[in-house]
Amino acid sequence: MTSTKLLVVGGVAAGASFAARARRLCESAEIMIVERGPDVSFANCGLPYFVGGEIAARDALAVQTPATLQSFLNLDVRTRCEAIQIDRGKKRVELRHLDSGASEWQSYDKLMLAPGASPLRPPIPGIDDARIFTLRNLQDMDRIAAATDTGMRAVVIGAGFIGLEMAEQLHRKGLSVQLVELQKQVIPPLDAPMAALLESELRHNEIGVTLGDGIARFEPTPDFLRCHLNSGKVLDADLVILSIGVKPDSEIAAAAGLELGPRGHVVVDGFQRTSDPDIYAAGDAVETADRVFDSKTAVPMGGPANRQGRVAADHIFLGEKARPYPGSLGTGIVRVFDVVAGITGWSEKRLQAAGRPYDTVTVNDSHHASYYPGAKPLTLKVLWEPESGRLLGAQVCGYEGIDKRIDVLATAILGGMTVEDLCHLELAYAPPFGSAKDVINLAGFAACNRSDGLVKHTTELPTDPQVQVVDVRPKPLAEAYPAPVPVINIPFPTLRASLGKLDPSRPVVTLCAFGKMSYFASRILTQNGFDVTSYSGGLKANVDPRTPAKMPTA
Amino acid sequence: MTSTKLLVVGGVAAGASFAARARRLCESAEIMIVERGPDVSFANCGLPYFVGGEIAARDALAVQTPATLQSFLNLDVRTRCEAIQIDRGKKRVELRHLDSGASEWQSYDKLMLAPGASPLRPPIPGIDDARIFTLRNLQDMDRIAAATDTGMRAVVIGAGFIGLEMAEQLHRKGLSVQLVELQKQVIPPLDAPMAALLESELRHNEIGVTLGDGIARFEPTPDFLRCHLNSGKVLDADLVILSIGVKPDSEIAAAAGLELGPRGHVVVDGFQRTSDPDIYAAGDAVETADRVFDSKTAVPMGGPANRQGRVAADHIFLGEKARPYPGSLGTGIVRVFDVVAGITGWSEKRLQAAGRPYDTVTVNDSHHASYYPGAKPLTLKVLWEPESGRLLGAQVCGYEGIDKRIDVLATAILGGMTVEDLCHLELAYAPPFGSAKDVINLAGFAACNRSDGLVKHTTELPTDPQVQVVDVRPKPLAEAYPAPVPVINIPFPTLRASLGKLDPSRPVVTLCAFGKMSYFASRILTQNGFDVTSYSGGLKANVDPRTPAKMPTA
Repeated sequence: MTSTKLLVVGGVAAGASFAARARRLCESAEIMIVERGPDVSFANCGLPYFVGGEIAARDALAVQTPATLQSFLNLDVRTRCEAIQIDRGKKRVELRHLDSGASEWQSYDKLMLAPGASPLRPPIPGIDDARIFTLRNLQDMDRIAAATDTGMRAVVIGAGFIGLEMAEQLHRKGLSVQLVELQKQVIPPLDAPMAALLESELRHNEIGVTLGDGIARFEPTPDFLRCHLNSGKVLDADLVILSIGVKPDSEIAAAAGLELGPRGHVVVDGFQRTSDPDIYAAGDAVETADRVFDSKTAVPMGGPANRQGRVAADHIFLGEKARPYPGSLGTGIVRVFDVVAGITGWSEKRLQAAGRPYDTVTVNDSHHASYYPGAKPLTLKVLWEPESGRLLGAQVCGYEGIDKRIDVLATAILGGMTVEDLCHLELAYAPPFGSAKDVINLAGFAACNRSDGLVKHTTELPTDPQVQVVDVRPKPLAEAYPAPVPVINIPFPTLRASLGKLDPSRPVVTLCAFGKMSYFASRILTQNGFDVTSYSGGLKANVDPRTPAKMPTA
Repeated sequence: MTSTKLLVVGGVAAGASFAARARRLCESAEIMIVERGPDVSFANCGLPYFVGGEIAARDALAVQTPATLQSFLNLDVRTRCEAIQIDRGKKRVELRHLDSGASEWQSYDKLMLAPGASPLRPPIPGIDDARIFTLRNLQDMDRIAAATDTGMRAVVIGAGFIGLEMAEQLHRKGLSVQLVELQKQVIPPLDAPMAALLESELRHNEIGVTLGDGIARFEPTPDFLRCHLNSGKVLDADLVILSIGVKPDSEIAAAAGLELGPRGHVVVDGFQRTSDPDIYAAGDAVETADRVFDSKTAVPMGGPANRQGRVAADHIFLGEKARPYPGSLGTGIVRVFDVVAGITGWSEKRLQAAGRPYDTVTVNDSHHASYYPGAKPLTLKVLWEPESGRLLGAQVCGYEGIDKRIDVLATAILGGMTVEDLCHLELAYAPPFGSAKDVINLAGFAACNRSDGLVKHTTELPTDPQVQVVDVRPKPLAEAYPAPVPVINIPFPTLRASLGKLDPSRPVVTLCAFGKMSYFASRILTQNGFDVTSYSGGLKANVDPRTPAKMPTA
């Protein structure tokens, strides 16, 4: 191994991690990184925050430079240098130096392809206007920072993670912002109800939100850019941020005949080897195993990229001690102003689309002990496999402690744990940090109640007049925030004495503020012979999310 | 089951949870709670925070009252009512009403013992002085609140979770506070190095900390109480808080001939049944299975208590659907001023004392992306079984995100996961929440590096002059914050060119600020034929913990 030459195409996340790990495992290897851009190993995920000024120091985003990679890791880094073709037979790559235009061939013993992914730019009229930006690297960020100023109008197209972060950060900089999304919700990976709080937070902060509509064409005018949406709606902008997704930069892999997946990702095995055993690939350009089902997935995130790079280096240098990349789960989180939402594993819509059996509950609680100041409401949805109870996915939205719950649930999914296991997670509890029964325990309880047949849930308010809808909230609350369907108000504490008000021959739906009392009511009525369904998650009609939640605990 | 009569002794955590769950499962059961104190279902864990004023509303701590338990759950609650003996033959309990002095017998079909635990009061001279307080319930809290005022001197004896919370809260109220602990560290369940940050935070806030010393006797004077410690040290106090631990209130269980464990806890099976199948027990008074090893444990915390009560109710009413209590892990967390420390599973000292094989690493990193404002340093220690890699325990200390890491690691332990699994936990990453490689991933990497023989660690600086100690920090740092042993300073970037400065025949220990560069240096030196050990965790000599950490990331 003493004379191994590693050539790394792409020096940001996966490529830099690969090279760093390779150097720690082998001092004698020759390791060259070629990177098309001028920077290596920069903090992609921080780019929006510099635009908005939340990160003030641009230097902080340049995690490493070619010089530090040289001095710390003895890496030979060539920036502004593009790999243009792979000659697999001779094990060499043609490189073009973007500044000089010169090209050269570099040989390799092992090649790592970590080219990343590019923002999508649909071929629609006006797309090449200079006022339309995408955000991939520090130069894009600098251009956007230079082009934006207080009072300008921005249209952000695409309400995914980057779109929401950019909308928030442009607003922070004083621009008026319109957000446009083709799906009927923001953050399309989430199930729609779990994304609603993000949407209301955007609107609360006077960001315009247009859902279920896409960009048809851009009409340039001298003073501004007119955005024509599919619906005919028109939004005028001083600049546009296009954040509708990314496509893997797999052209040279394709040209070299490496196997690609259905969406153009490089296919790799558990050790990140492509269909050529001397060529590895990692990061946004590859597809990997899915960690929930025996299928493939592509998760264009920094965490998986870094760890895939590491796995490939281990495979080259650690021999039998190398461990495969176990696949990606798809964990994501976004903060917009005061609201945070996150997802891990599979969503309900994805399970539905794949025709996979699942069950789900949604619960509400405070993010820490409700008696300790500052408790904020939080909503948690879990999905599981009905037969086994195995967790398939989870989503959380609220204000505080969202990342914690997502991380615990991601860990539980990776551990192959079940909803029953959630009941008895022994999580850290002191009043500033949690509750004696954390919302994750409550989700386990609710899921088991459902599996055990103790409760039936509905997520839709009934419209059939035969159904008796029993609103068990206190009378003043029920009157101040009436349910959107006709109800019989029977405040919970009076329910046992009021059974005569209900017709036992007709079905009942119970409802309340958070879905807890309606469950309790359903237990009383079920045991008294009624056919009862509890309205899941509650009306939340009286919740001002910016004030502490007062949850019933009985 | 229609006429089942449940009698519940103790109405705080386990007892109230048992009764609430029982009611949801069975409307027709007769359920009576007897509680010695005047309150039921109050928030024990919030008591210190009311004393300090951090929780302002006393009402918030009374989660339920006898009246709400009646109206919501149709429970018959008797407060100020003590269970004084159990007649197992006749299935009845003698109760004494503390206000009237009257006594009566109440029968049961199933009895739940949830009496809790009492603060220890050692029989030392002066212990009965009225200025010595323990904290178990709202009345204790009220007495302490009434007895304390700005400018007073408090001595807190016992630096466990409650002791530290009380020290902080009394300081918050303006008292001058001295903390005394028999062990040589605060929070004895932690390994000493993981408790050091708590200690320095206490001292930073001018709380006196006396370690390795215990209370010998109290000498009352008219104006104050003189505390004589074992060492001869004397501390004068206007009041004393005694928080040296608790003992299970298992007297009536013992008197009834129920099986007790070695420390006086009631022995129960997986469904919380005592040695009498009609008598259940739950909460601080019982011992349960340990979740790490096949052994017994007693965890006097609210979370386990609540869930044990629920399990017992399920066993009575759910038949085959009832699931056993899987045991307790021992997860705990404490905040003192700005510092937080937590533990889950077994500590190193506990593993050592039990003679169980283990291995361990300690890593440092920022609690979220270091390039995003507000990143704070965090130290994480994991322990695992060498043979299998199975996680046995973890401890975390720092400023932010401690609860999250503890919860993830608690979940991983409960899922039977290994240190290898930690490498590939896919945790939520956006700059405000985490890092592309979270500190938990780093702990997995470090553990695997150790298992794979890529690095040897030491936690002690060598004193043998034969050993070459190589300090790889930058020269200005190494000079400003010199290591406490003689070193050769070879700044990391110059190491590869400076091998000639070292004698290959003598062992080397590498050291740095955080333990990361010393590992990198050990890799370089190892591959160049040196016998190298890396100083684990780093010197941290230059860390001002209140400023963002700048961690090397190469």
